[in-house]
Amino acid sequence: MKMTLSSLASMLGLTLKGEDREFSGLNTITDASETEVTFLSNPRYVKFLKDTKACAVIVSKEHAGDVRSAALISDNPYVDYARAASLFVREQGEFSGVSELAWIHPDAEIGKDCVIHPFARIGARSKVGGGTAVFPGAYIGEDCVIGESCCIWPNAVILAGVTLGDCCVINSGAVIGTDGFGFVRHSGMMFKIPQIGTVELADGVDVGANSCIDRSALGATSIGDSTKIDNLVQIGHNVKMGEQCLIISQVGISGSTKVGDRVTMAGQAGISGHLNIGDDVTIGPQAGVPKDIADGITGGGSPFMEGSHYMRVAATMPKLHEMNKKIAQLEKEIDRLKALFSQEEK
Amino acid sequence: MKMTLSSLASMLGLTLKGEDREFSGLNTITDASETEVTFLSNPRYVKFLKDTKACAVIVSKEHAGDVRSAALISDNPYVDYARAASLFVREQGEFSGVSELAWIHPDAEIGKDCVIHPFARIGARSKVGGGTAVFPGAYIGEDCVIGESCCIWPNAVILAGVTLGDCCVINSGAVIGTDGFGFVRHSGMMFKIPQIGTVELADGVDVGANSCIDRSALGATSIGDSTKIDNLVQIGHNVKMGEQCLIISQVGISGSTKVGDRVTMAGQAGISGHLNIGDDVTIGPQAGVPKDIADGITGGGSPFMEGSHYMRVAATMPKLHEMNKKIAQLEKEIDRLKALFSQEEK
Amino acid sequence: MKMTLSSLASMLGLTLKGEDREFSGLNTITDASETEVTFLSNPRYVKFLKDTKACAVIVSKEHAGDVRSAALISDNPYVDYARAASLFVREQGEFSGVSELAWIHPDAEIGKDCVIHPFARIGARSKVGGGTAVFPGAYIGEDCVIGESCCIWPNAVILAGVTLGDCCVINSGAVIGTDGFGFVRHSGMMFKIPQIGTVELADGVDVGANSCIDRSALGATSIGDSTKIDNLVQIGHNVKMGEQCLIISQVGISGSTKVGDRVTMAGQAGISGHLNIGDDVTIGPQAGVPKDIADGITGGGSPFMEGSHYMRVAATMPKLHEMNKKIAQLEKEIDRLKALFSQEEK
Repeated sequence: MKMTLSSLASMLGLTLKGEDREFSGLNTITDASETEVTFLSNPRYVKFLKDTKACAVIVSKEHAGDVRSAALISDNPYVDYARAASLFVREQGEFSGVSELAWIHPDAEIGKDCVIHPFARIGARSKVGGGTAVFPGAYIGEDCVIGESCCIWPNAVILAGVTLGDCCVINSGAVIGTDGFGFVRHSGMMFKIPQIGTVELADGVDVGANSCIDRSALGATSIGDSTKIDNLVQIGHNVKMGEQCLIISQVGISGSTKVGDRVTMAGQAGISGHLNIGDDVTIGPQAGVPKDIADGITGGGSPFMEGSHYMRVAATMPKLHEMNKKIAQLEKEIDRLKALFSQEEK
Repeated sequence: MKMTLSSLASMLGLTLKGEDREFSGLNTITDASETEVTFLSNPRYVKFLKDTKACAVIVSKEHAGDVRSAALISDNPYVDYARAASLFVREQGEFSGVSELAWIHPDAEIGKDCVIHPFARIGARSKVGGGTAVFPGAYIGEDCVIGESCCIWPNAVILAGVTLGDCCVINSGAVIGTDGFGFVRHSGMMFKIPQIGTVELADGVDVGANSCIDRSALGATSIGDSTKIDNLVQIGHNVKMGEQCLIISQVGISGSTKVGDRVTMAGQAGISGHLNIGDDVTIGPQAGVPKDIADGITGGGSPFMEGSHYMRVAATMPKLHEMNKKIAQLEKEIDRLKALFSQEEK
Repeated sequence: MKMTLSSLASMLGLTLKGEDREFSGLNTITDASETEVTFLSNPRYVKFLKDTKACAVIVSKEHAGDVRSAALISDNPYVDYARAASLFVREQGEFSGVSELAWIHPDAEIGKDCVIHPFARIGARSKVGGGTAVFPGAYIGEDCVIGESCCIWPNAVILAGVTLGDCCVINSGAVIGTDGFGFVRHSGMMFKIPQIGTVELADGVDVGANSCIDRSALGATSIGDSTKIDNLVQIGHNVKMGEQCLIISQVGISGSTKVGDRVTMAGQAGISGHLNIGDDVTIGPQAGVPKDIADGITGGGSPFMEGSHYMRVAATMPKLHEMNKKIAQLEKEIDRLKALFSQEEK
């Protein structure tokens, strides 16, 4: 795709200072070539302005004077970079209509303007909303409801009875609706607790590549509006998660835990089952959460501690061996003092 | 599905107290609607009996009097709930016979009453036992032996030469038999150790969605009878695991480790390679196990510690910073005492 | 496959001592049957020589005298075992040519001697190099460049615009090129930062089963020559990784981190974003890395500590509770000493 700086400026409402020209894309301030536009948002990167090869920089008024190429002056360079980038998003899966190589049950309902790719599979009585794309190898079970404008990427699996709102994105290899892990070892045998519930995703939920959301034993595992889940995340059965959460890669949430709204969980954090995690909670990377967390708490560590407390404990951790040695020294010194004291007493 | 309370009672051998009626399913005591049955097993939930909307409660004799709707009196409400739930398990993958859209090598043997879905792929000389279902996108390599009544869910991958017993469940996206990770960096080059072994699953093994079990370098990676593995678990090459283990989500077990029978590993635990983990061991969430563990041990932490010891260490962890401050104070006080003492001596 | 000991000896340049015979494969010293060859490399296993059933042992001159069956004398038994094993690697995916059941865009270019299996999907303008195999269910997006002699295993997903060098192996269920996790919660809304970059793998890169490598926001996420990535690994957007790295299972690397050459990361380690990890760094299992690491450092722990320091801290950890108790005792003893002292002063 080719575009001119002036047309970009007019689309985004920016002021172009410098010569108009064609450009081919966007890139970072250090990696941009002469045919690419970059942006300056983080003040730490001002130093790179003098060496960037970019043909134009989306920049605040304040720093526009430091730009050697063309400047695209913006009130919020980060937001305008994101808006510019959205013009360059690569379309994926060039295809239209419903492939004859897809397997669609005659009782499934496919909405208007859906794209159903070859080797997709859609089960009986499932409804796929208008404008939704189902990529090759994606599997949709029986009695599913898929909203409008969803994207079900290659080899994603949505098992029977699962419900998705509008504008959901299920990335490649994600699995929604496998049986929750309900087994009981009892009198020398292994019993399975039937998982007869389902999974419900509200509108605008993203599920990352190869992430898993388990079907509940009873009722539904549910994820609220606009919650975004990264890759390789495990969400156990009967979890109820609120809106606008950000769940980073490799997090695991055990069964029946309730998670509030606007919760952020950093990579590899693990949350035990049957807990209540409040609204606006932020959980650090690799944290281990064994107890409820109240609204608004930020923290980390295993076991989970509140923010500044956790920072102090983490900073102390590398001193652990030294601490132990000091304790031994103190013991000796106290023994010596006691000896001296008792000697003197005599 | 619709059923009456009296027919449920007669199927499960329960006593119905109260009016007979139709119901449509089961749900939890707090979420059940007027057309659903619930159960009371955990005494903590007795308080919900007065407000539940359920049309009937599976309940012990002891609590039957507190039920406001119909009661289904049971000697073991949890077991009878599980038995009732099994009547409501949703059938998945409505299809029968062998699809013409599957790719089956002419030398593969497909047993009686198998369901082979569209886009499944079964390789040369593989044998699929009677009553087994192979879902869309599932891949079975060459020379595999798949037992009877197995379920190979959508997009699961079973590579060449792998053996499964009867009644195994391979969930969506699970990968059985990839090459173990055998690489050696040597004299400026990277060498691969060929992985010429295989994977053998005994009867009744479940492998969770997107879990991986690697092919051994030599011999077989093996998993014993009725062992259940959750989602996103990694089992390295040459691991030998016993019977009736429960391996929870995101656990990683490194190569050549031996795991006994009835071992439970909680979420995100990591086990080093070449270890012996005994029978009846329980390993806590996020534990890091660098050494052998004897039979019957329960514990957690990183490095792994035995139960009550680990609990004390974990409870002390949040005091770490405070401990360090106290040590500094004690040092000062001892210095002061020493100074006072030497002053006095003079 | 059947082969004689003498033909193996001549292929690998080994000296056969003992009777020639046919054998059927290789196995470990403890598990080999009478028709299998084994090897002795680790001196810890010398004790097994007397009981092994193997019909021959690849062994150093030093230990050849202890072998009861035939000996295949080698200067480097481990390397010669690996070379012997490579003769027994099972061929997978018996198929040749381009399947009529694959979906290949007319504008894709398929090189000489490629094997394109049924249900594979290759998008517009993508180029697949000669000798590459694309297994069933594998997805290759638009405008991809796949080098020569690559293996794209079943159900692997390579999204649009991704580039692979020669001899890359993308294992089953791996996902290359999903959108990086770029979301911003702002004034009550969730915004997505478009991810318009790509992923570039150099020559000889292996990506494990169900691992994920995310597309960059701008520019490319890149992995250097001969780097080997195990199963269930997450590599965030804009990560730049060097050559000959070994990234073990379930590691997570956050966005924009730079990793040098010959770096080893053990299982379940987590690396924060925007860091610089130097060359020849080794990071232990479950380590949490919040800061840059200089060249050549080995270490572990969370937060990451250098080697011997970390070992001491890890060894002290189980004493934490005891340390806390000692501190309390010391406090008491000091109080007593102070009391005695002040008493005496009076």
